[in-house]
Amino acid sequence: MMQCVAGSRMEGVLDLLGLLAYAELSAFLRLSDDASIALALQDKVALAEMAVAEYGHYRLLVRRLEDMHADPEAAMRPFVPAVDAFHAHTAPADWLEGLVKAYVGDGIAADFYRTIAVLLDPETEGLVQEVLAEAGRSEYIVTRVREAIESDPAVAGRLALWARRLVGEALSEAQRVAAERESLASLLVGGDTDQLGNIGRMFARLTDGHSRRMAALGLADQRAESRPA
Amino acid sequence: MMQCVAGSRMEGVLDLLGLLAYAELSAFLRLSDDASIALALQDKVALAEMAVAEYGHYRLLVRRLEDMHADPEAAMRPFVPAVDAFHAHTAPADWLEGLVKAYVGDGIAADFYRTIAVLLDPETEGLVQEVLAEAGRSEYIVTRVREAIESDPAVAGRLALWARRLVGEALSEAQRVAAERESLASLLVGGDTDQLGNIGRMFARLTDGHSRRMAALGLADQRAESRPA
Repeated sequence: MMQCVAGSRMEGVLDLLGLLAYAELSAFLRLSDDASIALALQDKVALAEMAVAEYGHYRLLVRRLEDMHADPEAAMRPFVPAVDAFHAHTAPADWLEGLVKAYVGDGIAADFYRTIAVLLDPETEGLVQEVLAEAGRSEYIVTRVREAIESDPAVAGRLALWARRLVGEALSEAQRVAAERESLASLLVGGDTDQLGNIGRMFARLTDGHSRRMAALGLADQRAESRPA
Repeated sequence: MMQCVAGSRMEGVLDLLGLLAYAELSAFLRLSDDASIALALQDKVALAEMAVAEYGHYRLLVRRLEDMHADPEAAMRPFVPAVDAFHAHTAPADWLEGLVKAYVGDGIAADFYRTIAVLLDPETEGLVQEVLAEAGRSEYIVTRVREAIESDPAVAGRLALWARRLVGEALSEAQRVAAERESLASLLVGGDTDQLGNIGRMFARLTDGHSRRMAALGLADQRAESRPA
């Protein structure tokens, strides 16, 4: 039941790659800023490693855009305002908030990649899987956040609120992007007539993943069970 | 005429690798900061590329330290104050000063690597050559600085002064490190009795390279010929 014409579908894929590329470039910049302000050498290195990994994703996405004969900068440009606005509204107050932001953001991005991979052509899907294969970088964050909560349990409440704010801001920017870029929105709903069902399932999956990550950090959502397994 | 015992020579090599590793990690952090504040997307990407290349060097140096059964963090730690002091004393006033700093610093580091490579064991020498092989990333800086001077010739004088200050600060930190780390200083003079001759030649080579780079940027040193070929 494909309702999109090929041209608009292609446009949607270019939009998606452009958005992800700029999001990864921004993640690189934010994480390397966090590495700059980290005090311990070990923390600097851990954050720099994560930043460089995001940059690797950015490079893969740009290469894919080039393979598709698109101009990467032109593909990214429409999404600069939304991604920049997200970061402007979620400037971490301290280093710990920066860590939580990196973990939450990276996790949502990975879940999102996983969800949309099936909508893409096999080559782009392969790329997305490659990006996802580099997991495990975030163990460091989990350890650091749990240590911080152990030494000051009051931190947990503040960070849990912070994580919810991050998700709220991400969703509101996502909504703005979807409203502005019809071809991208069409791609994401897959041209299916049961659009609300699809989007609903996608959000359900993203929300589940987020709750799991909050539990891993020791910041189980207050609406969820307070004792993660 | 080797006067150093093997142990102190090994200590010198570990010092050198530790110093270079921390310098590369810092270069990564500074360049990615510059990428953050760059306004144009194209500039952000160019600076991020350079930052990630420096991080690649850092990784190679850390791997070599690990191969030598050294703790990379312990090897870097003695040099944190000097490298941090250098950067604290040379915070760029604007983005253009940041570019010149990256170019001058990268160039001096490359010349220094080339000069010391012969003092090292073959494996470490091979590594240093590998780091050097990744040249050509700085064409972007040359283009940007020359554009800035063309649109405002007064910029040249300010940037030339800035470049001289960078070299002065680098030398004064190098002197401090040499005074504090005898084994490193011994390695660099090669245990030769004609120490002053060796150090003199090394500085002459570094100075020549610096003058060449100033000419490339359109910032020929006032003491040198004012018309580079």
